[in-house]
Amino acid sequence: MKVTADNVLAAVQRLNDEADIQRVLFQYAFHLDAADPDKMLPLFTPDLYVAYGPSHGATSPEEYLAVLSNDKTGIAAFFAATSHHVSNVVVDFVDEDTAKVRSVLLAWHRYHRERPDGIVYAQYHDVFKRTSDGWKIHRREQLTTGTEQYHAKADALVMAPRKAVGA
Amino acid sequence: MKVTADNVLAAVQRLNDEADIQRVLFQYAFHLDAADPDKMLPLFTPDLYVAYGPSHGATSPEEYLAVLSNDKTGIAAFFAATSHHVSNVVVDFVDEDTAKVRSVLLAWHRYHRERPDGIVYAQYHDVFKRTSDGWKIHRREQLTTGTEQYHAKADALVMAPRKAVGA
Amino acid sequence: MKVTADNVLAAVQRLNDEADIQRVLFQYAFHLDAADPDKMLPLFTPDLYVAYGPSHGATSPEEYLAVLSNDKTGIAAFFAATSHHVSNVVVDFVDEDTAKVRSVLLAWHRYHRERPDGIVYAQYHDVFKRTSDGWKIHRREQLTTGTEQYHAKADALVMAPRKAVGA
Repeated sequence: MKVTADNVLAAVQRLNDEADIQRVLFQYAFHLDAADPDKMLPLFTPDLYVAYGPSHGATSPEEYLAVLSNDKTGIAAFFAATSHHVSNVVVDFVDEDTAKVRSVLLAWHRYHRERPDGIVYAQYHDVFKRTSDGWKIHRREQLTTGTEQYHAKADALVMAPRKAVGA
Repeated sequence: MKVTADNVLAAVQRLNDEADIQRVLFQYAFHLDAADPDKMLPLFTPDLYVAYGPSHGATSPEEYLAVLSNDKTGIAAFFAATSHHVSNVVVDFVDEDTAKVRSVLLAWHRYHRERPDGIVYAQYHDVFKRTSDGWKIHRREQLTTGTEQYHAKADALVMAPRKAVGA
Repeated sequence: MKVTADNVLAAVQRLNDEADIQRVLFQYAFHLDAADPDKMLPLFTPDLYVAYGPSHGATSPEEYLAVLSNDKTGIAAFFAATSHHVSNVVVDFVDEDTAKVRSVLLAWHRYHRERPDGIVYAQYHDVFKRTSDGWKIHRREQLTTGTEQYHAKADALVMAPRKAVGA
């Protein structure tokens, strides 16, 4: 695209929106690695939908906070440490206030109990909404590509689709 | 750089071009992980050059598609799943329509046959060209830094140069 | 934020500064992986402060160069190869010429001596300063989240804080 006096405001708006959206992705990872669910919740719209497995996810902030904070299976209870590395961010605007956002995740997990560290390779497929308080995650689906020594097996995860051989 | 009314169009042009180039890098990784070579080819110029080993690469879209789609050694035939994580993108414009682009890759590979998953740590050294259809990869050289349990050994890869001790 | 004729210069300035800062992070990683300390030093201000362990770091360019170039424990002497993957970059401007910058690191290390490759999962917590020669790292603290088979144990590293269970 050739940037001109006529389209420069729209171009900067797009770049600015993309930077804001990226920041939300990275703040999510940071607060997750800090095991701080209270700071993760404001990154989502009130009508959030989150899914990373057939039986894992949430459809309201209250439910999501309960999942993340559960005193047996929540972040801080289950993992001694995690490190979430988010890259390959691609933003597609559906309209001025809605964007489809795809990114790639490498997440390392150290457990409290004695077992090898687990790694998850996955994709986030998100829908972001612009709110009066900035861009927020409206819908997040984590599609898992593969895992190494992770406690949850493939049948407990939403796996990323892949063209079959010869397809 | 101080952004002023005089240079703002050039500054936005550069930011916009860099964002477009990054998107191509990430779409490449996405279609590769989806084992979808037909969607990878349009990311390259017709006079492409791709090299990741002395005997691995291609100098035309037809040849590259054949490599990627080979029914014994192509992506879908060889790997059950892959996850390509691209970061550290540095863009240097050579002229308005040409850019040298360097990025860093962590690529995880699961095989169809029984063997441990392989990881590749590498750098992409690309030349991008602006076309009437947007920025495309004109030349891509993958320099490998190291591998873990990858099927191709170092002598089958182009290794990244590194200053020797005392050099 | 709504980009308008009134704020567009400030918006582009911010985007431009963030792109310049990211570039410094990535050049640091590139020169580190090339074991080329002489090219790393110009990325820092003369009054640099670098810390990644209680007894690891530097408070001047001369000291940092000595650490990186040490003929027993420096980069080239100690590691046969490294690959530093930097993502999740979040920039917060303190004033026009100062920014707090946080990023996430996955660093792979191959040793010269016979031992398994080591991986470090960490966060960079940096302070950048704008100089007449562009943005430079004024202060860098590496907070380690966890390691795999790395030669330095946790007590030799600055560990990232994390909310305790029930905290």
